[in-house]
Amino acid sequence: MSIQPLAPLMTPCLIVDEARMMRNIKRLEGHAASLEVPLRPHLKTGKSIEVARRMLAGGTGSAMVSTLAEAEVFAAAGIRDITYGVGIALNKLDRVLDLHRAGCRLTVLVDSAMQARAVAEASAQAGIAIPALIEIDSDGHRSGLVPDDPEIIEIGRILHQGGAELAGVLCHAGQSYGAVGHAAQAEFAEVERAALVRAAEALRAAGLPCPIVSAGSTPTAHAAQDLTGVTELRAGVYVFFDLVMAGIGACAVDDIALSVLTTVIGHQPARGSIMVDAGWMAMSRDRGTAAQEVDQGYGLVCDEAGRPIPDLIVTQTSQEHGTIALRPGSSAAMPALPIGTRLRILPNHACATASQHGHYNVIPAKGGPLMQWERFGGW
Amino acid sequence: MSIQPLAPLMTPCLIVDEARMMRNIKRLEGHAASLEVPLRPHLKTGKSIEVARRMLAGGTGSAMVSTLAEAEVFAAAGIRDITYGVGIALNKLDRVLDLHRAGCRLTVLVDSAMQARAVAEASAQAGIAIPALIEIDSDGHRSGLVPDDPEIIEIGRILHQGGAELAGVLCHAGQSYGAVGHAAQAEFAEVERAALVRAAEALRAAGLPCPIVSAGSTPTAHAAQDLTGVTELRAGVYVFFDLVMAGIGACAVDDIALSVLTTVIGHQPARGSIMVDAGWMAMSRDRGTAAQEVDQGYGLVCDEAGRPIPDLIVTQTSQEHGTIALRPGSSAAMPALPIGTRLRILPNHACATASQHGHYNVIPAKGGPLMQWERFGGW
Repeated sequence: MSIQPLAPLMTPCLIVDEARMMRNIKRLEGHAASLEVPLRPHLKTGKSIEVARRMLAGGTGSAMVSTLAEAEVFAAAGIRDITYGVGIALNKLDRVLDLHRAGCRLTVLVDSAMQARAVAEASAQAGIAIPALIEIDSDGHRSGLVPDDPEIIEIGRILHQGGAELAGVLCHAGQSYGAVGHAAQAEFAEVERAALVRAAEALRAAGLPCPIVSAGSTPTAHAAQDLTGVTELRAGVYVFFDLVMAGIGACAVDDIALSVLTTVIGHQPARGSIMVDAGWMAMSRDRGTAAQEVDQGYGLVCDEAGRPIPDLIVTQTSQEHGTIALRPGSSAAMPALPIGTRLRILPNHACATASQHGHYNVIPAKGGPLMQWERFGGW
Repeated sequence: MSIQPLAPLMTPCLIVDEARMMRNIKRLEGHAASLEVPLRPHLKTGKSIEVARRMLAGGTGSAMVSTLAEAEVFAAAGIRDITYGVGIALNKLDRVLDLHRAGCRLTVLVDSAMQARAVAEASAQAGIAIPALIEIDSDGHRSGLVPDDPEIIEIGRILHQGGAELAGVLCHAGQSYGAVGHAAQAEFAEVERAALVRAAEALRAAGLPCPIVSAGSTPTAHAAQDLTGVTELRAGVYVFFDLVMAGIGACAVDDIALSVLTTVIGHQPARGSIMVDAGWMAMSRDRGTAAQEVDQGYGLVCDEAGRPIPDLIVTQTSQEHGTIALRPGSSAAMPALPIGTRLRILPNHACATASQHGHYNVIPAKGGPLMQWERFGGW
C-alpha cells in the first residue's frame, strides 16, 4: 500500500486494513459454509456498526455481543437477533426486556438454577418469554456446567415451564487460545462439540427442547472438521486477528488487519532503544504473547506501509511512551529510525487494543481516501 | 459507609471515594508545603475536570498532562499553565501553538537537538516562544539525557538562541515504582534531585537560563526529604492510589480511593471460584503487582462497603468475565457470595483501570447522593 493516506493522521491512532479484514471475514464464512453451519459473529472486538455490517450475514444477521451496551447500539442499527454472551446479572433483566420491547430478540446465558428462576419470573411478569441458553463448560476455562451436571436438566425445566424460552446450549472452548497448531485446535473443537451434543441430548432425553447448539471461539471455529449436531458457529477476533492468534497458528502475521500508527519521539542509543508516542494507553496492557513461544512484547513493529521490521518489538510501555528495541538475542541490525519516523505496531490482542480508541482509520479495500469508523465502549 | 447510594448503579462501573481522594490530595500538599516546593499535579490519572479542580492549587493552578487532548480539555476549563510530559512529536507543534494562541502556556519536553531545532523554528515562524524543558534521565527508565551529556547544552543554546524559551529541566524517576519502602524511595528522590541540579548547573555554567527544575513521581514526591535546587514537584496517581503503590509502601490499602463495582454472576464450586461481571474491560489488563511481593491478580476484592475480604482476589479475566478465588496458598475460608452479590475490586493501577471507563460514580466526602463525574480519553 501507499503510505500517503496516513499522512494527515495524528499519532497514536488505530489503523484498519479493510482488505485484510474482508479476507478474514470471507475465510471463516467459507469454512462455515463448507461445514454447513451458519455463523453468529461476535461483535465485541469491533464494537462498530461498520465492522458489524461487514461481518454479519446480509449486514444485520445473527450476532453475539459481550455487553448490553453493544446489544442496545446494534439493535438500534437494525440487528434483531443477538445473543448476550456473559451470564446474566439479575439487575440487567429490565434492560433485556426493554430490548425485546424494541423488537430485538435478545438471548441470555445462564448456568445456575437461580438465574433461570429469575429469568423465568421476569419473563412471566412481563409477558415476554426471554430466550435463554444454558452455558456448558467443556474445558474448565471459566463459567458453565459440565455436560453431565444434573443442574442442566433442572435449569431446562425452570426455563421451559416457568415462562421463559429454553433456547438451547452454548459453549466457548476458551482453553483453545492456548492450543498451538491446527491439529490441537481441531481437538478442542471436537471437545467443544462433544460436550454440547451430550448436554443437548440430555435435555432432549428429559423431554425438553434444545433447538440451538452453539459452539465456537476463533481457534476452534477455524479448525473444526465436523460439526454434527451443532446449529451455529461463533467467533469474534478473527475479524482483525492479532499476534496471539498468529502465535498459535490460527492466522499468519500478514492476516492481522489492525495496527497502531505511532511516531518516533526520541532515541536512547546507549540502551539500543527508540521511544515512540504509543504507550499502553494506545496498545493496552495486554501481554498475551508473553507465555507463547515468541514473546512479542507489547507489539511487533512494522514500517508505515505495514511491513514487519525483523525482530523489532515494543519492549516496554508507560502510559504514553513506548520503548522499541530488537528482540532479546536478535542478530538483526537496528534500523535507522530518525525522530519523526512513522511506524505501525501490530497488537497482541485486537479486542484489548481496539478498546483503547474511539475510532478506526480505515484503509479502504478499493483504494481512495481513508474512512473513519466510530467505535464505542461502556456497559 | 452505607452501601445504599450504590444500589441503582449498573455493573461494572467505577466508584470514587471522595473522602479518601481528598485525604490523599491533602497529604501530598502538606508534604510539599513542608519542603517549600510548589506542586504540579499530573492530571493523566483522573482525566476529569472535577478531579483536576480538587488537585490543583486554587482549582486551576499549574498542571501536568500526558496528551494534547488533556491539554486542550483542561485549557478550555481555565487551566493556563500546563506541561505536556511526553517528548514532543514534531507533527504536534501546530496544536501546541494553537493552545498558546488560546491563552494557555503549554510547556513541551525535548531530549534531542533535532526536537529543539523544530521547536525553535516553529516558535520563530509563529512569533510565539514555546517554552521547552529538557528531559533528564536519572535512572535509565525511559527517555531523557544523562546529566553530563553535552547535548543538554547544545539543546539549551538552540532553544534559547532560536526563538523558543528554554524553561529548564525535568526528570521523572520511573524506576522508583520498583523501590520498596520509604527509605528506598527517598534514595530515588535524591538521585532524581541530584541529576536535575547537576544538569541545571551545567546549563547555568554555559550562560543559559534554567528557571524550572521539575522533579517527581508519586513514590519520590512522597518520600523526598530535601529538595534543594528543585522548583516544582510532580505526582499523579496519588490522587487515587492503587495496589501497585500499596505494594511498595507508598500508601496503605485503605488509602485507595478507586474501585470497580461488580456483581456475582455464577459459581464454579469444583474449582473454588466465583464469576463476576468485571473482566479486563472493566479492570484493564494491568498486572503491575505480578512482580511484587504480593501478587494481587487483577485486583483485591472488597465487600460493597469497600472492606477487603481476606485473601480474595481476581485471579483471571476475560473481556467481560472476572474469576474470583482465594489467593494461592491461603487458608482463609471462601465467603458465601450468592449470585447477585455486589463487590468492589481495588485496581492494580488506577491510571489503567480508570481509562477503561467513561465516568466516575463518586461517593461524596460530605455524604448525600452519588455524584457523576465525566472523564475523557483520546489524543
